[in-house]
Amino acid sequence: MAANTFGLNFRLTTFGESHGPAVGCVVDGCPAGLDFDTDFIQMELDRRRPGQSRIVTQRKESDTFEVLSGVFEGKTTGAPIALLIRNENQRSSDYDHLAQAYRPGHADYTWETKYGNRDFRGGGRASARETAARVAGGAVAKLLLRHQGITINAWVSQVGTITLDRHYSTLDFAQTELNPVRCPDQEVAARMEALVMQVRKEGDTIGGIVSCVIRGCPAGLGQPVFDKLHADLGKAMLSINAVKGFEYGSGFSGASMRGSAHNDIFENIGGEIATRTNHSGGIQGGISNGMDIYFRTAFKPVATIMREQETVDRAGAQVALAGKGRHDPCVVPRAVPIVEAMAALVVADHLLQMRTDRL
Amino acid sequence: MAANTFGLNFRLTTFGESHGPAVGCVVDGCPAGLDFDTDFIQMELDRRRPGQSRIVTQRKESDTFEVLSGVFEGKTTGAPIALLIRNENQRSSDYDHLAQAYRPGHADYTWETKYGNRDFRGGGRASARETAARVAGGAVAKLLLRHQGITINAWVSQVGTITLDRHYSTLDFAQTELNPVRCPDQEVAARMEALVMQVRKEGDTIGGIVSCVIRGCPAGLGQPVFDKLHADLGKAMLSINAVKGFEYGSGFSGASMRGSAHNDIFENIGGEIATRTNHSGGIQGGISNGMDIYFRTAFKPVATIMREQETVDRAGAQVALAGKGRHDPCVVPRAVPIVEAMAALVVADHLLQMRTDRL
Amino acid sequence: MAANTFGLNFRLTTFGESHGPAVGCVVDGCPAGLDFDTDFIQMELDRRRPGQSRIVTQRKESDTFEVLSGVFEGKTTGAPIALLIRNENQRSSDYDHLAQAYRPGHADYTWETKYGNRDFRGGGRASARETAARVAGGAVAKLLLRHQGITINAWVSQVGTITLDRHYSTLDFAQTELNPVRCPDQEVAARMEALVMQVRKEGDTIGGIVSCVIRGCPAGLGQPVFDKLHADLGKAMLSINAVKGFEYGSGFSGASMRGSAHNDIFENIGGEIATRTNHSGGIQGGISNGMDIYFRTAFKPVATIMREQETVDRAGAQVALAGKGRHDPCVVPRAVPIVEAMAALVVADHLLQMRTDRL
Amino acid sequence: MAANTFGLNFRLTTFGESHGPAVGCVVDGCPAGLDFDTDFIQMELDRRRPGQSRIVTQRKESDTFEVLSGVFEGKTTGAPIALLIRNENQRSSDYDHLAQAYRPGHADYTWETKYGNRDFRGGGRASARETAARVAGGAVAKLLLRHQGITINAWVSQVGTITLDRHYSTLDFAQTELNPVRCPDQEVAARMEALVMQVRKEGDTIGGIVSCVIRGCPAGLGQPVFDKLHADLGKAMLSINAVKGFEYGSGFSGASMRGSAHNDIFENIGGEIATRTNHSGGIQGGISNGMDIYFRTAFKPVATIMREQETVDRAGAQVALAGKGRHDPCVVPRAVPIVEAMAALVVADHLLQMRTDRL
Repeated sequence: MAANTFGLNFRLTTFGESHGPAVGCVVDGCPAGLDFDTDFIQMELDRRRPGQSRIVTQRKESDTFEVLSGVFEGKTTGAPIALLIRNENQRSSDYDHLAQAYRPGHADYTWETKYGNRDFRGGGRASARETAARVAGGAVAKLLLRHQGITINAWVSQVGTITLDRHYSTLDFAQTELNPVRCPDQEVAARMEALVMQVRKEGDTIGGIVSCVIRGCPAGLGQPVFDKLHADLGKAMLSINAVKGFEYGSGFSGASMRGSAHNDIFENIGGEIATRTNHSGGIQGGISNGMDIYFRTAFKPVATIMREQETVDRAGAQVALAGKGRHDPCVVPRAVPIVEAMAALVVADHLLQMRTDRL
Repeated sequence: MAANTFGLNFRLTTFGESHGPAVGCVVDGCPAGLDFDTDFIQMELDRRRPGQSRIVTQRKESDTFEVLSGVFEGKTTGAPIALLIRNENQRSSDYDHLAQAYRPGHADYTWETKYGNRDFRGGGRASARETAARVAGGAVAKLLLRHQGITINAWVSQVGTITLDRHYSTLDFAQTELNPVRCPDQEVAARMEALVMQVRKEGDTIGGIVSCVIRGCPAGLGQPVFDKLHADLGKAMLSINAVKGFEYGSGFSGASMRGSAHNDIFENIGGEIATRTNHSGGIQGGISNGMDIYFRTAFKPVATIMREQETVDRAGAQVALAGKGRHDPCVVPRAVPIVEAMAALVVADHLLQMRTDRL
Repeated sequence: MAANTFGLNFRLTTFGESHGPAVGCVVDGCPAGLDFDTDFIQMELDRRRPGQSRIVTQRKESDTFEVLSGVFEGKTTGAPIALLIRNENQRSSDYDHLAQAYRPGHADYTWETKYGNRDFRGGGRASARETAARVAGGAVAKLLLRHQGITINAWVSQVGTITLDRHYSTLDFAQTELNPVRCPDQEVAARMEALVMQVRKEGDTIGGIVSCVIRGCPAGLGQPVFDKLHADLGKAMLSINAVKGFEYGSGFSGASMRGSAHNDIFENIGGEIATRTNHSGGIQGGISNGMDIYFRTAFKPVATIMREQETVDRAGAQVALAGKGRHDPCVVPRAVPIVEAMAALVVADHLLQMRTDRL
Repeated sequence: MAANTFGLNFRLTTFGESHGPAVGCVVDGCPAGLDFDTDFIQMELDRRRPGQSRIVTQRKESDTFEVLSGVFEGKTTGAPIALLIRNENQRSSDYDHLAQAYRPGHADYTWETKYGNRDFRGGGRASARETAARVAGGAVAKLLLRHQGITINAWVSQVGTITLDRHYSTLDFAQTELNPVRCPDQEVAARMEALVMQVRKEGDTIGGIVSCVIRGCPAGLGQPVFDKLHADLGKAMLSINAVKGFEYGSGFSGASMRGSAHNDIFENIGGEIATRTNHSGGIQGGISNGMDIYFRTAFKPVATIMREQETVDRAGAQVALAGKGRHDPCVVPRAVPIVEAMAALVVADHLLQMRTDRL
């Protein structure tokens, strides 16, 4: 079954493995007439690419992309937009020792069980390198959102046990890109960075949480009963490598609240209907209500650690294995643009879907 | 855009409003030759229906169903299976006072903004009555899973701040149905029930968490990169009314863990590959690994409370509103079969999808 | 695999067998706010139903329908519209002799080979009774088209070797319903009717052709490269029971033409771009050009004949079989509303799809 | 709406314009473990490419392809297979005179009306160059069919009024590739070729018909009620540039037949159920019956002719236009591999879909 396409009207198809010739994507359904800002797309790819700071993997990939189709005279034409990113800095030999063993916490075992084969060079299709294609496609979605006045801001709100305990409305997102952790509070960011450095020194890895807010969405986005806006956002986030959980608005904390406290009271503010609080996270009954859409995504620690771990090999023998190669000690800083990209794809898709709601 | 269908190969389409003539579903893609156990389906509907205990809404709906198609001589034929559940106990007059006001925490405002109309009688399509159709369709999926030796057990693990702090492996799921809360620990269940009764007495409502474990799945379920098994489970859960969050395996707690602690060590146990721990929740790289699949779903408190709340009406005027009618003070006991139904639909779909993975 | 749903944005799901309790459909994606004209839908069903004239089957089915959902206060709400048609006049005993033998020209053998079971009572899901659900769903699509000023007219242009040799632009479609054959030329209709009566007397059946013209479509309908407007129309027609071929515009005769004769010259007629001829059938490059959309659909003779035929039974033994029951000697008169219904579904779907073409 | 993907389980997405950097495709859902025969794929592309004989366009395109993903150690892995074909021999200047005028019989006018833009260089996305990507993807499908023992043979059965009047069962398909027309009867082929040469000399073009037979299919392919095997074949063919009609089995001639003559009598031939005749074209009730699947596809004459034609330009002014550049005088010889490719995609998809029919 084919599952490398995401979305219904605004559709992203990705392809490519970490150690093949390239990764890339086809964006189908993008409306014609959109200004195609290649600099912006490259900027988004740069936010995700390896080697951008000292706390991420030191692989060298320029992640420059080529537009193969769908754009003419600087605008989208309505034809599918294919974007190609060549792989450059592959060191497959880093993975030779993995040809036989199943790395703990990785998809090695499940992929081989499922498909009867295994591309042991860096995870193959299961590698997070595939997310470069998502960021490229998501950048096209962001162009559509920009045209509609919608903004998406993600940031790191937790690394290990260090949390950013500030309501998102108090944050200045211009600060997010000022530190390698992508936490918009410089003091907390410094502590997070120190933790990541410490964890790497210990040959270990650490998890974290990426928060995200979407602003400027019209009321009416989302397609009940199954394609509720938050359900599609949740699936989008859960499809990202290493994600373990998703919540929006009050999220898991809503489970311990009472209705009288949780209900967001409607108010008429100068002719605009708004809610006094936003436990709903901007979504009611699966449909956006015009308030900020707010959600959080939990990432587990990266599975590849530089310590020796037990595991089994393809023959079922118990073996020991230690990570080689160049890996992230913490995935969340580079996950920020990926979360934004997937969120942008969902919103772009629902913006188009919404066009057919009424006569 | 049409979003009342769930699944790719095993597909559920639901229809119906709370105060229309009926709700129902069409299950398409169910393999031919499956024993169609109508008693089992009715039993599942009975678990969800109103009026089954003192802590749920006292509306009277027998929720009996009629098989309209797709079954011949006791077996599925490969044709679409349509199931019809007539609505019986509608008291639309309970909702007259709502014709003009937007209930806080409900989909009234977003639905009207989106579609330009509003069925104010009990929430219309946004009502949780729609989930009866999901339970009916999910029961058909469960029949397929039963045939494959797969079991699904959900239970209430939290009501308000009362939590069941036991690892799921220590629970006896035969106990779940022995109390109205559907918590498999009778002592904790009693405290939860007392809380629900107390909250109702106060005219308020309370949230909670439903946990779920799926056992007996083969390794190989899930379709990366977008239709990862947990991504589809997450979307399924998030599509249920009142759900605010989803996590699987280590979930949000994984965000504060280190890789060395989080990685599940592979072991060869008598020729079977297993993992020593199960932070993965039975899913690695989006593909089941044969271990228990474990996830948790957070529900907010029911929005309809019996206290007066402020809100605005369609003209934008500030008005006060109090709930009437017969509503659940806490949704999670009745959500247990819904969670199971949606999980069953996902697993059934992926079982079929998996058939095309290999030559 | 589930294949009982047609369309992407405007979607029809049908269910039901000829000898089960009911057939029906769910229309999902119909825009909210459409006037729901139940009389019109019933009128469309009446055009298809058995027993309406002396040249069709004499089964008695009132084909009245019930609206189960999706309509409130006379308008569509955006929720799925479920329509139910009870089966009334089943004489399953007519089919007892078929339980073991494969009827020549029917789906008995292929269905049983595929699904491992067989509902021998009247063809089960393979029966043309399923098309009642298509006509009901197509009538909803027609309501949307009517709102957009689009008309669809189908008619019988051939029965056996009797052909209506007039260009469609000279026909008065008000005449189509004035004779039981549904041929808008009364003289030709009379000859066709005589042929059908003669064929029935001989215990035989006869094929025919239904032509169709769609007027008032805007330019721009159709989604290249795969969902070209004529490709979707073709699939829609070919999905109808007994259809053997589809052509649009010049069709098969275009194969013997030269480009200089086939090309439709563009003209500016009072500010409107039009074509001088219409070999294109109103579609160029898969996209409507605003001219009349014109196509023809070929139907084979009904397979059930009242003569004895050889065949084999489930055990592989050679047996003789003669039709019983009440069958159409010629399917095309009753196929006219079915062709229109399927065409309406395609156009409605593409009208919605077209809304997302541009920024 | 996104319509550049074909198929449900075995899915082809194509991208690229005639005068952009490349065309290409992503094949998603191909089972893992299939031998990936690159020589075969190149051979298929060579059959379609320009410049291969004196009766086709003399553009020079090597149409060599690069495998970007989805293949490891010579076998498919289950990951999406991306294939890239660079455009080489573009002479955009041939099209400068077209920037303002709408070519008769082309998609210029409809595309511009739909999307509000126009890539006038060779038709852009509407160019038949896109079919190179279909042939590449179809070749992958053919590899799957080869593995299952299924063969597909298409051939030219008509050019203008010259027809090959032999039953397909008497043809030797090894002869098809022995002449530039791709007609398996050398004498008829010579006459067809002479006609094409003559037509070209006159600056004109000519239509034709491609016939196709699929052998070795198991009974059971096809998914009623909408995704009948012939309905999907029909849509596949109608989606090819310049196609005007599709028929299978008896096709349009079936419309004038009687049931007693049309019905294919079942026989038990050595334990295998077969039909004495094959008016069904190997498909009954939308499901393959194990006999040869046979269909015919009609192509109109190529729209670009070397004679002056009237038309209008973007400003609505009447202008005269003559074709420049290098074009095919008759499309059917090069359409043969395209017809086969699209047929292979349909069969591959249905082979996978069939795997879920039964328990």
